[in-house]
Amino acid sequence: MALSGVLRPGHVAIRVLEMEPALKHYVQVIGLQETARDAQGRVFLKAWDEHDHHSVVLREADEAGMDYMGWKVDSPATLKRLAAQVEASGLCSDFAWIPAGEHPATGERFRFTIPTGHVMELYAEREVIGNCCGTDGPDVNPTPWPDGLTGIAPSRFDHCLLYGDDLDGTVKLFTEVLGFGMAEQVMAGPDGKLMIGAFLSCSNKAHDVAFIRQPVKNKFHHASFILGSWEQVLRAGDILSRHKTSIDIGPTRHGITRGETIYFFDPSGNRNEVFSGGYIYYPDKPVITWTDNELGAAIFYHDRKINEAFLSVFT
Amino acid sequence: MALSGVLRPGHVAIRVLEMEPALKHYVQVIGLQETARDAQGRVFLKAWDEHDHHSVVLREADEAGMDYMGWKVDSPATLKRLAAQVEASGLCSDFAWIPAGEHPATGERFRFTIPTGHVMELYAEREVIGNCCGTDGPDVNPTPWPDGLTGIAPSRFDHCLLYGDDLDGTVKLFTEVLGFGMAEQVMAGPDGKLMIGAFLSCSNKAHDVAFIRQPVKNKFHHASFILGSWEQVLRAGDILSRHKTSIDIGPTRHGITRGETIYFFDPSGNRNEVFSGGYIYYPDKPVITWTDNELGAAIFYHDRKINEAFLSVFT
Amino acid sequence: MALSGVLRPGHVAIRVLEMEPALKHYVQVIGLQETARDAQGRVFLKAWDEHDHHSVVLREADEAGMDYMGWKVDSPATLKRLAAQVEASGLCSDFAWIPAGEHPATGERFRFTIPTGHVMELYAEREVIGNCCGTDGPDVNPTPWPDGLTGIAPSRFDHCLLYGDDLDGTVKLFTEVLGFGMAEQVMAGPDGKLMIGAFLSCSNKAHDVAFIRQPVKNKFHHASFILGSWEQVLRAGDILSRHKTSIDIGPTRHGITRGETIYFFDPSGNRNEVFSGGYIYYPDKPVITWTDNELGAAIFYHDRKINEAFLSVFT
Amino acid sequence: MALSGVLRPGHVAIRVLEMEPALKHYVQVIGLQETARDAQGRVFLKAWDEHDHHSVVLREADEAGMDYMGWKVDSPATLKRLAAQVEASGLCSDFAWIPAGEHPATGERFRFTIPTGHVMELYAEREVIGNCCGTDGPDVNPTPWPDGLTGIAPSRFDHCLLYGDDLDGTVKLFTEVLGFGMAEQVMAGPDGKLMIGAFLSCSNKAHDVAFIRQPVKNKFHHASFILGSWEQVLRAGDILSRHKTSIDIGPTRHGITRGETIYFFDPSGNRNEVFSGGYIYYPDKPVITWTDNELGAAIFYHDRKINEAFLSVFT
Repeated sequence: MALSGVLRPGHVAIRVLEMEPALKHYVQVIGLQETARDAQGRVFLKAWDEHDHHSVVLREADEAGMDYMGWKVDSPATLKRLAAQVEASGLCSDFAWIPAGEHPATGERFRFTIPTGHVMELYAEREVIGNCCGTDGPDVNPTPWPDGLTGIAPSRFDHCLLYGDDLDGTVKLFTEVLGFGMAEQVMAGPDGKLMIGAFLSCSNKAHDVAFIRQPVKNKFHHASFILGSWEQVLRAGDILSRHKTSIDIGPTRHGITRGETIYFFDPSGNRNEVFSGGYIYYPDKPVITWTDNELGAAIFYHDRKINEAFLSVFT
Repeated sequence: MALSGVLRPGHVAIRVLEMEPALKHYVQVIGLQETARDAQGRVFLKAWDEHDHHSVVLREADEAGMDYMGWKVDSPATLKRLAAQVEASGLCSDFAWIPAGEHPATGERFRFTIPTGHVMELYAEREVIGNCCGTDGPDVNPTPWPDGLTGIAPSRFDHCLLYGDDLDGTVKLFTEVLGFGMAEQVMAGPDGKLMIGAFLSCSNKAHDVAFIRQPVKNKFHHASFILGSWEQVLRAGDILSRHKTSIDIGPTRHGITRGETIYFFDPSGNRNEVFSGGYIYYPDKPVITWTDNELGAAIFYHDRKINEAFLSVFT
Repeated sequence: MALSGVLRPGHVAIRVLEMEPALKHYVQVIGLQETARDAQGRVFLKAWDEHDHHSVVLREADEAGMDYMGWKVDSPATLKRLAAQVEASGLCSDFAWIPAGEHPATGERFRFTIPTGHVMELYAEREVIGNCCGTDGPDVNPTPWPDGLTGIAPSRFDHCLLYGDDLDGTVKLFTEVLGFGMAEQVMAGPDGKLMIGAFLSCSNKAHDVAFIRQPVKNKFHHASFILGSWEQVLRAGDILSRHKTSIDIGPTRHGITRGETIYFFDPSGNRNEVFSGGYIYYPDKPVITWTDNELGAAIFYHDRKINEAFLSVFT
Repeated sequence: MALSGVLRPGHVAIRVLEMEPALKHYVQVIGLQETARDAQGRVFLKAWDEHDHHSVVLREADEAGMDYMGWKVDSPATLKRLAAQVEASGLCSDFAWIPAGEHPATGERFRFTIPTGHVMELYAEREVIGNCCGTDGPDVNPTPWPDGLTGIAPSRFDHCLLYGDDLDGTVKLFTEVLGFGMAEQVMAGPDGKLMIGAFLSCSNKAHDVAFIRQPVKNKFHHASFILGSWEQVLRAGDILSRHKTSIDIGPTRHGITRGETIYFFDPSGNRNEVFSGGYIYYPDKPVITWTDNELGAAIFYHDRKINEAFLSVFT
C-alpha cells in the first residue's frame, strides 16, 4: 500500500558514440558517480542521493539513443504479476527475461517493447551500495548533502521524455496495466480530441515518463536528472558553459509540470535535462490539459514558443 | 498500484481560542483560503495548490490543540477495508463512522484513536473545487502559480508532528496496517534500541506524519505547510515578523528530512511550520537512523542543539 | 569623498506609442509606482526602494526610444563644475539648462548630447518622497520590503545600454570628464584593439551605463531594473508570460557583469531588462576584457551565442 | 570623482590562539585562500573575488580579537592628505607610519587609534595578484565564478562590527574626516537622542564598518564576508554544521541593512559572519533610524529579540 507496484524509473541505458568523452560529460560535468564497468565495456553510474547500485548505463555504439528504460517494482512477486499482465495486455511485444547479474548487482529483468517502440524493463532487486545519502556511516546521522560533489551534481535520475507513434497504446499500457496516473496531457486536432503528449506518474512526482506523439518509433528526447533549486539550475548553466557543453534551451520554466529546466546535449547528441521544482502529484488530482494553441507555453512557459530543436532533434 | 491506499494527510482540525485572530493568522499571514463555514462556526480552509475542498478546519474551543487529523484514501472500498483492518488490529479504540456531509463536500469518515492518543480519520471522498492550480479555466493551460496570492502562501498542507507515549503501538499501526514506510527514526536508550522519534511516509515525501515519544497522550507539536523554496522560507520569516507573529525557531534546516524550516505560533499557541526541500522517499530506501547523541543536529541541523521550546511547548 | 560627483542614473525618459498600454506594462507588469503626471501628459514613475521622486519618465510619441538619461550629482556646486567641464571638453554639443520644475520635484538640469548621439542630463536636486524604503514611518524602523507590491517589483532603476557610433568619444567623456571607471570592455578588430563595448561605472555596481559601437546615433537598447535574487528573475519570467509580454531572451546569465537577466519589450517595442547579481566594482579593479571570439559568452553566458535580436532590435 | 577617497575595508588583522586550527577554519571552512606567510608567522589570506593580495591577516597571540582594520584609499596623494586630516582632527592618537613591505605586496600604511579604541590603518598600494576573478587568463573572458572553490567561499571580506565607548567621536571621525555616510543609526535614551549604533558606508554598500556603543575600548564583534545569495547562506550553515563549527545565530535576516546572515565563531572565539543581500546605499539617501524599543527587530528581524550572546560575547 501507499507506494507499491512500479516504484520509479530505475535505469536508463544510453548509447554513446565514444565512451571517453561520454564519461567526461556524465561524470565530470553532470557529476554522476561510476559504480561499475562490465566485460562488454558498459559503464554503470548513479547520482549522489540514489541508494541503488546504478541508474544510468552507458554503452558505446554506432548510433546515439536509448537502448531501454528500466522500472523498479516493489517485489519479485509484483515483477511476476506485472510481467504476466504486460504479456496478457496484447499491447507489447518482444518479451524476454534477462537473467540476474546481466546488470551488476541486479536481479532478473523482464523486457518488452511498448507500442511507441521503446524497450522497457521491470525488475525487483538491486543492491543498495555504500554510504548513501551523504551519511557519516551507513545511513546514521547523515549530513544533508555529501562532501566532495563535482559538477552539476543532481540528486537522482528522474524521468525520460520519449517520442513515438502509437501514443494511445503506450498510454493505455502505462495507465491500465502498470498503474500510472496521467498528470498532464496535450490535446490537438480539430476538436481537441487527439492526444499528442502524455505526462505519466507512478509517484508524487509530476512525471516519471512522458511521451510525445511523433511519426517515429523508439526515439529518445531526453533523460532528466533532478536538482534541489532554481539556483542549482543557474549553476548548472554556468558549469555547462564552462565546459562548452551544447545547451539546447534554458534556464527556463516548463508550463507542463511547472519544472525549472535547462536542456543540453551529451557529446553523442543525446539530450539531457536537469531541472528543479514541480508540484506534488496525487492520483486523484484532476488531469491538467494543454490545448495545442498554447503548446508553446506548455513546453517553455517564458518564451511561449517551442524552439525548432524541441521537435526535430532527438536520438 | 503506484500510489494507493492512504494517499495523503487530507485535513487537520485545530482548536483555537478565538476565531477572529485565528483567521487573521491562517488567512492573512499564512495565506490559506477560506472555503466554507458551518453552523457550528467551524471554518474550512485550503492552500492554493490543493484541489480538494479543504485541508484545515478551525474550531473555537477553550483549549488549543488538535482535534484530529484526516487521511484521504484512494476509494470507498479501501476505506471499508482499512477501517476493518484498523478495528481488527487491536491497536486502536473509540471507533466511529462520521456521516457524509459532517465536513462540507466530504464523504463519510472513519474515526479512531491511535495508541499515542491522537484521533485519526480515514475518508475517501471530497469534492474538488473551483479553478484550482492557478488555471485559466478548470485545469486547462494553467499558470505555474495563481495571481493574487496573499501572505506566506504555501502550496499545500503537508504533515503533522505529534507527541505521545505509546510510540511503538502507533508506529506498528501506521507501518503494518496503514501501509506507511519509516523514512527516519531517532533511537535512544543505553543500547540505542529505544525509538523516540518516527518519521512516517505514505508517499514520496520524507514524512506525512511524525511522532515523538513523550510521556503524554494526544499532544500536538505542529502542523506544517509546504513552500517551493528556501527563499520563500526567508520571505515567510519576513511576513511573520511584519505581523509580529511569534517565531519559535528558524529559518534553519532540519537534519531529519533535510527540510528548510521556520516554526511559529498561531495566536492560540498552536505551532505551525512552513518548510521547503527534503528528498524523494521510496519504500525501499534504507531507513535513516539518528542516535540520541546527535539529536540536536537531527532536529535543527545548524544549531546542533534543540531549543528549550521544542520539547516543552505543545498544545 | 567616498561616493561623490556623479552618483547614479537618476532618470530615463522613454518614448511610448500609447500611454495606456505603456502604463499597464510599467505599473502592473513591472510594478513601478506612478508619482506624478504633468500638463504635457508625461507620467513619472519610481521603483519601491528609490527615495527620489521619480526615475522613469514616459512620454507619448510617434516613435519609441529614449529621449534622454539623467544623472544625479552630489550637489549644485558639482553640477556647475561638471557642466563647465562637459562644455569645455569639446566632446559634446547642444548644451542647455532646463529650469527647475520642468520635471516635478526636481531642480535645474544641464542637458547635452554625447558623441554617440544620446542626450544626457546632470541634476543635483530632487525631492525625497513619502515613506520610502518600506518604512513604517519616515525611515524609522523599516521592514525589509514594503507590503502590497505588485508585478515584478524591482527595487531600483539601474542602468541603460545604448547603441552609437562614436564609442571612443563617449568613453572619453564618461571616464575623463565624468569620473566613471571602465569595468569591462569588449575588444575586436584584427589586433583586438577596437573597442566595441564599454561597461562604465560611477559606483560599486558593475555598470551604470553601457555603450555598444554600432553605426547609428542615439539608439536605445534597454533600460534595466534591479531585482534581489535569481528566484525573482524566474518570478519575473512567470509574470511576463502571464501577461503575454514579449520576452527577448532569458532567464540567463550575462558573462559581462555576471548578471542574471531576462530581457523583454514594452508594448512600444522598447527593450527592458530585470536582473540580479553582479559583483562589487571598485575603481582600482583590473578592467575585464572580452575578446570578440567570445562575444557570445560575454553577452549570454549559457548559450554562448548572441541571439539575432540583440544586435538588430533597438529603438 | 565617483568613488574616491577611502575605497573599502582592505584588511582585518585578527589574533588567533593557535594558527593551525585557525587556518583550518579560515581556509577549509570559510574558503579563503592563503597568499603569503611572513617571518613573524603571520598568514595572509584573500577571498576568491578580491583582486588585491590579501584582505585577512591572522596572527597567533595569547588573546583573541582584532589587531587593526585597514582601509584602501584611492592614491598615495589621498593617503597623505587623509593622514594629515586624521592627525589634525584631534580625535585620534598613536599615529604611526608603517613602512612599505611590512605587509607583503603592500605600500606604506598610516596607523592611528580612533575614539572607540580601535586601531585603523590607511594605505594606497597593494599588488593585484594572479588570475583573479575566475578568469581564464589575466582578466580576459572570465567565467562568473572560479572552478575548485572550497568551503563557504565568500567572494569578499566586507565589513567589521566593533564595540567601543566613544561612539560620538568615532562617528565624527568617519563622517567628517574620512568621508563616510551614515546609512543607519540606532537611537536610545529617554528622548531617543543617544546614538547607540552607527552603520557607516564609504560605498554603495549598506555598511563598510559599524560601531555599537558599549562601555569598553577596542572590542571586536565580528568580521563579515559577503555571499551571493540566501541559498549560499543556507549552504554556509550546512558546511559550518558539518565541521561542527560553533554557530552564534542564523540563518536569519537583519533589520538593519536587510542583510541575510549567519554568525559563527572561529576556534579562538572570534565571531565571523557570512551574509548576502542588503540594499544599494547612496550618500543622499535618508538615514534610517531604529528606536531602541525595536532593537530586537533591528538586529535579528525574524526573532525580534537580541540573543544573549550578541551583546555579551566579543573579543
